[in-house]
Amino acid sequence: MEFIQSKQNQRIKDWRKLQTSKGRRKTQQYIIEGQHLIEEALRSQVNLLTILVTQKFLEQVTNQPVFKQQLMASGIEMIEVTNEIMASLTMTETSQGVLAIVGMNPLGQVSQKLNGDYYLLCDSIQDPGNLGTMIRTADAAGFDGVLIGEGCVDLYNDKVIRSTQGSLWHLPLIQENNSTLMTYIADRQLPVYATALHQEAKSYRNLAGQKGVLVLGNEAKGVSSNWLKFADEKIYIPMPGRAESLNVAVAAGILMFAWSEESKML
Amino acid sequence: MEFIQSKQNQRIKDWRKLQTSKGRRKTQQYIIEGQHLIEEALRSQVNLLTILVTQKFLEQVTNQPVFKQQLMASGIEMIEVTNEIMASLTMTETSQGVLAIVGMNPLGQVSQKLNGDYYLLCDSIQDPGNLGTMIRTADAAGFDGVLIGEGCVDLYNDKVIRSTQGSLWHLPLIQENNSTLMTYIADRQLPVYATALHQEAKSYRNLAGQKGVLVLGNEAKGVSSNWLKFADEKIYIPMPGRAESLNVAVAAGILMFAWSEESKML
Repeated sequence: MEFIQSKQNQRIKDWRKLQTSKGRRKTQQYIIEGQHLIEEALRSQVNLLTILVTQKFLEQVTNQPVFKQQLMASGIEMIEVTNEIMASLTMTETSQGVLAIVGMNPLGQVSQKLNGDYYLLCDSIQDPGNLGTMIRTADAAGFDGVLIGEGCVDLYNDKVIRSTQGSLWHLPLIQENNSTLMTYIADRQLPVYATALHQEAKSYRNLAGQKGVLVLGNEAKGVSSNWLKFADEKIYIPMPGRAESLNVAVAAGILMFAWSEESKML
Repeated sequence: MEFIQSKQNQRIKDWRKLQTSKGRRKTQQYIIEGQHLIEEALRSQVNLLTILVTQKFLEQVTNQPVFKQQLMASGIEMIEVTNEIMASLTMTETSQGVLAIVGMNPLGQVSQKLNGDYYLLCDSIQDPGNLGTMIRTADAAGFDGVLIGEGCVDLYNDKVIRSTQGSLWHLPLIQENNSTLMTYIADRQLPVYATALHQEAKSYRNLAGQKGVLVLGNEAKGVSSNWLKFADEKIYIPMPGRAESLNVAVAAGILMFAWSEESKML
């Protein structure tokens, strides 16, 4: 196994650029951290290019013959690096001593024509934890894909990836500008339900069992006017308590599981 | 208005100690940041002790006569501080230039005997954003209180408070050791539903309309064995997709709104 000791090594310097959205876009690569995500990536046939490990991780992994065997059998390039290099590449405070460089799959290529019945649309979701959690929940609810509209945080941000817990590899993620997404939706003739304020909207409970696209909007501003105009119906979640609003990922979960429950499972 | 310029001022030094759980416990005080939380605190008759502002905030607030009037009318001590002092007290990266020192209400005193029908119990919730979001969602769903068991992150952590969006002042939060909480629950004869793995549990959809205590557990380990043993019933959320699990705050939202919807609103 190759061993890199210098932080000035050219490959290390190149990989460090993957910490920015610009660097990721340019090279079409991103970083995933930790054993759990790498296991999930191996299962999901993701394009893993290189795995970097520290001495300490190599010692620990000897106690995990299954994972070690998976790594070895994968044939993926493995490189040992110093703790200092690992720390310079990771975004988490307490690194497990293992990360991987991943090649992006061409986003959305799989299904430029939407071919499912249930989609979540994220409109200007700014918090990486929220976007990642929404993708994870859409996966859990059995949705057919997540449409990522304008104004969202970079999908390959490390916190987004961590929050998806690997779900980003389980269902189509289609990131396009809003007008392209609207064309896809119109082609498929899917009804669009946008979350909105109480006064102007129907309770989501009246809509269970409908196929369509569920639009959730920005944490502070809600769904943008473009999507509100495009929507066939505006829906809201009745809240008997005193809170003014719900966290957007929680709201998405309540809505997706209400739909899923009625329409797919009963 | 008093103006403090020195970071070595004794009051500033004392307030800086509120950034740690130990400092907060000792003084029974905590810090809230930003205009939105302070407005919510003013509405909720929270024990606001002192408000600290920067010059920049004072300039901005002249454009907000309603908020300014509220601040003035409240009679709460206001102190102007330098940007440097403000930065040394805030935990957020981009401070709005306003924060407040708050006296804790005695936790749980209000309702040592539970007097409602719907409670969320947080068991070893470690992520501050999750705990805060769960309190916010319990408030939105009209739950009667949140029981905070052993192993949870400090309730007065700045990220917890920020994630509650002020809901921590809207409903009783009862933080006790597990055996005390179990006594409260037994006294009230409330059934306890713990989330668990599929194999051993009932779908939550069979339980809508039940009053009781809903137990959600640690992000990695789930509900602890103590609470699983104490539970009358184990429940799970059926997931048609490929994700192995849901984020705990999302799961709490789906469960609370399913209960709330069936039992309180129809």
